[in-house]
Amino acid sequence: MLSTIHDVSTQVGQEVTLRGWLHNRRSSGKIHFLIVRDGTGFIQAVMSKAVIGDEAFARAGHLSQETSLSITGTVRADARAKGGYEIDVAGIEVHGEAHDYPITPKEHGVDFLLDRRHLWIRAERQTAILRVRHEVIDAVRDFFNSRGFILCDTPVFTPAACEGTTTLFPVQYFEETTAYLTQSGQLYNEANAMALGKVYCFGPTFRAEKSKTRRHLTEFWMVEPEMAYADLNDVIALAEGLIASVVARVLDRRAAELRLLERDTAKLEAVTTPFPRITYDEAARILREKGQPFEYGTDLGGTDETVLSEHFDRPVCVTHYPGSVKAFYMKPDPEQPDKALCVDVLAPEGYGEIIGGGQRLDDFDLLLQRIREHGLPEEAFQWYLDLRRYGTVPHGGFGMGIERCVAWICKLEHVRETIPYPRMLYRLYP
Amino acid sequence: MLSTIHDVSTQVGQEVTLRGWLHNRRSSGKIHFLIVRDGTGFIQAVMSKAVIGDEAFARAGHLSQETSLSITGTVRADARAKGGYEIDVAGIEVHGEAHDYPITPKEHGVDFLLDRRHLWIRAERQTAILRVRHEVIDAVRDFFNSRGFILCDTPVFTPAACEGTTTLFPVQYFEETTAYLTQSGQLYNEANAMALGKVYCFGPTFRAEKSKTRRHLTEFWMVEPEMAYADLNDVIALAEGLIASVVARVLDRRAAELRLLERDTAKLEAVTTPFPRITYDEAARILREKGQPFEYGTDLGGTDETVLSEHFDRPVCVTHYPGSVKAFYMKPDPEQPDKALCVDVLAPEGYGEIIGGGQRLDDFDLLLQRIREHGLPEEAFQWYLDLRRYGTVPHGGFGMGIERCVAWICKLEHVRETIPYPRMLYRLYP
Repeated sequence: MLSTIHDVSTQVGQEVTLRGWLHNRRSSGKIHFLIVRDGTGFIQAVMSKAVIGDEAFARAGHLSQETSLSITGTVRADARAKGGYEIDVAGIEVHGEAHDYPITPKEHGVDFLLDRRHLWIRAERQTAILRVRHEVIDAVRDFFNSRGFILCDTPVFTPAACEGTTTLFPVQYFEETTAYLTQSGQLYNEANAMALGKVYCFGPTFRAEKSKTRRHLTEFWMVEPEMAYADLNDVIALAEGLIASVVARVLDRRAAELRLLERDTAKLEAVTTPFPRITYDEAARILREKGQPFEYGTDLGGTDETVLSEHFDRPVCVTHYPGSVKAFYMKPDPEQPDKALCVDVLAPEGYGEIIGGGQRLDDFDLLLQRIREHGLPEEAFQWYLDLRRYGTVPHGGFGMGIERCVAWICKLEHVRETIPYPRMLYRLYP
Repeated sequence: MLSTIHDVSTQVGQEVTLRGWLHNRRSSGKIHFLIVRDGTGFIQAVMSKAVIGDEAFARAGHLSQETSLSITGTVRADARAKGGYEIDVAGIEVHGEAHDYPITPKEHGVDFLLDRRHLWIRAERQTAILRVRHEVIDAVRDFFNSRGFILCDTPVFTPAACEGTTTLFPVQYFEETTAYLTQSGQLYNEANAMALGKVYCFGPTFRAEKSKTRRHLTEFWMVEPEMAYADLNDVIALAEGLIASVVARVLDRRAAELRLLERDTAKLEAVTTPFPRITYDEAARILREKGQPFEYGTDLGGTDETVLSEHFDRPVCVTHYPGSVKAFYMKPDPEQPDKALCVDVLAPEGYGEIIGGGQRLDDFDLLLQRIREHGLPEEAFQWYLDLRRYGTVPHGGFGMGIERCVAWICKLEHVRETIPYPRMLYRLYP
């Protein structure tokens, strides 16, 4: 019976055929221990010379790492086995050989591995991270879909440089036009929310940032919900609910992967709502108390975020930044107009910002004034101004970066392992 | 109680507050009939002068289309009402006015509407299409996720022009490098399948095609599954299952939207597996019999596909095209090496290709030969060749275009209405 390693737990005592690749092999005279992987998991296949015959046994002694093969054998429960099961091999068929597979069990440098990312993703640790990523994305979609949000894909090609061109990738759009790759679907999301009430977009976004930090990719995935008739509190509640829901889902369905990654799950189990909420002013005070050099009035830097996020045992919501450090479309707090009705959510354990959002400026005159103050091309924003011309409503939303979220949940050093083919300043291959 | 139009069916006799926009208004002396939309639906709100008072009634007589407002009133079931319910208004609050909303109930040309796409999506028909799109995408994801496929996002930035540069969008990638926007995640998918067994990618793809047909966008979404240890029959079975599953889901969950779009659902109910399967040779014979001028040996054109897809009452799988009209990575049929182990699925009712895929060439030597024959840059394909160097296995998959799928299910004239912000040869705004 054709099966997968994932399914053998229900097939103890049965003969199954698994199709996969040889991950590792060791031999002890009359027995080969083959570690086989098939994409759903890893399992040890025990091949005895007595069962398989001298000739087949000798051939198997030459199988090298990443050879593709099918093994047929009987599933046996074994408490000592990593996954709890082993296969007693009755037959083996080789499909494709693999000579001198470059990624060996020894340590390799990260550049060596990134150059071979198309092979590196076969490693047990990498497949675990990618499965967590899959789960995070699925949890995000289920969260929004079950709450009546409509997925509205926003365009990658955008006509105007919305927030300054320094971090935009320009594209020649046929002969005459320059398009820019989207940095955020938010402005379009706002239009979509006026049509469908609660919406989200979820796609790749692009930043031509030259920074080489462990939190930056030039191409990354972002989910951005937007709600009509919503204020800052609604936005914060949605952000809290999303993060708690995603973490709970990964804990529930990817326990094996988290174990493999040696993740301390107690830290994740602490991620329950409500999250602590502090204002920018309070954040500044905490930073001062901790001796972090911080100039009041500026944006929080990466290190500031790290310090703050280490101060709390769960994600923390930082609200009411100075309007001057936030985007032109942020609504000012009516009670303190120099502060914006915004929120950044910082992940704990030093991971920093994973969500940024807030309530949008819904007043036509003030929005136009802001566009002018920021020196933005007024013509390009006419459609955006239309949203305030024709039935404006209070509304808000946020963006959550998937790679930062996965890096935090898996507790990785760098976001580059959270996506199959990371794109960075000097990294476009494979 | 705050509610939505979608939820009033469970709130008959209760007083609710709905927050939305005025879609239309007509008055008859002492009663205003306000059609209100809130993103979840449309409902008629009946405002009587006797209840609301003279002053408020007079003010409401000046409300214009797309004014944002809250209405409070009692839900009443009414069999004559479009959605089955009405609201008897007790109070009204206006949030934002809307003067001279440009999209009136009269007919507008499509360019006029596309220039105002950020507003056009508020129309009842457009929201219905976008909800069907949402459902199609959700059904696709559920289909793959429930079958053990792992989502593996493939990069938008790709290093080399894989299949000729004529339809690629080049991007300046920092100072020294040119990147190309992905046309397909397939090659990366193949690497991912060797790591995770069954995978899919689902993201925007880009074609710089100058063709202005009803089937083309420059930016469109495609889902691409790929399976290790799979042959052409597995690929066809997966494609059939996916399409049948998506159609059944839309029929089940978006009946109201299909009704609004006046879709003949009997045609969709006929979409059950197995689908008819014909070879390219049989397709050529059908085209000849129907008097369609068709040169044997060439690819099927748009009109050919239309003719074929009108010949069947459900999607039809066309297999075994000449290898010469298909991509270099297609596996030749061992029994007729000039034919490829490929499949295109044509949607019925004249919609043509929605899926293209097949079994991939898994032999290192033959793949290298093909790369050379096609004059492709060998160096750029070294990583792809690695997949045949290190444990090659039979594998295959396909790509399904979301917009074409939605256009067919909704029976639209043109794919441009299937995505919030269509990008075409002369269309980059808004």
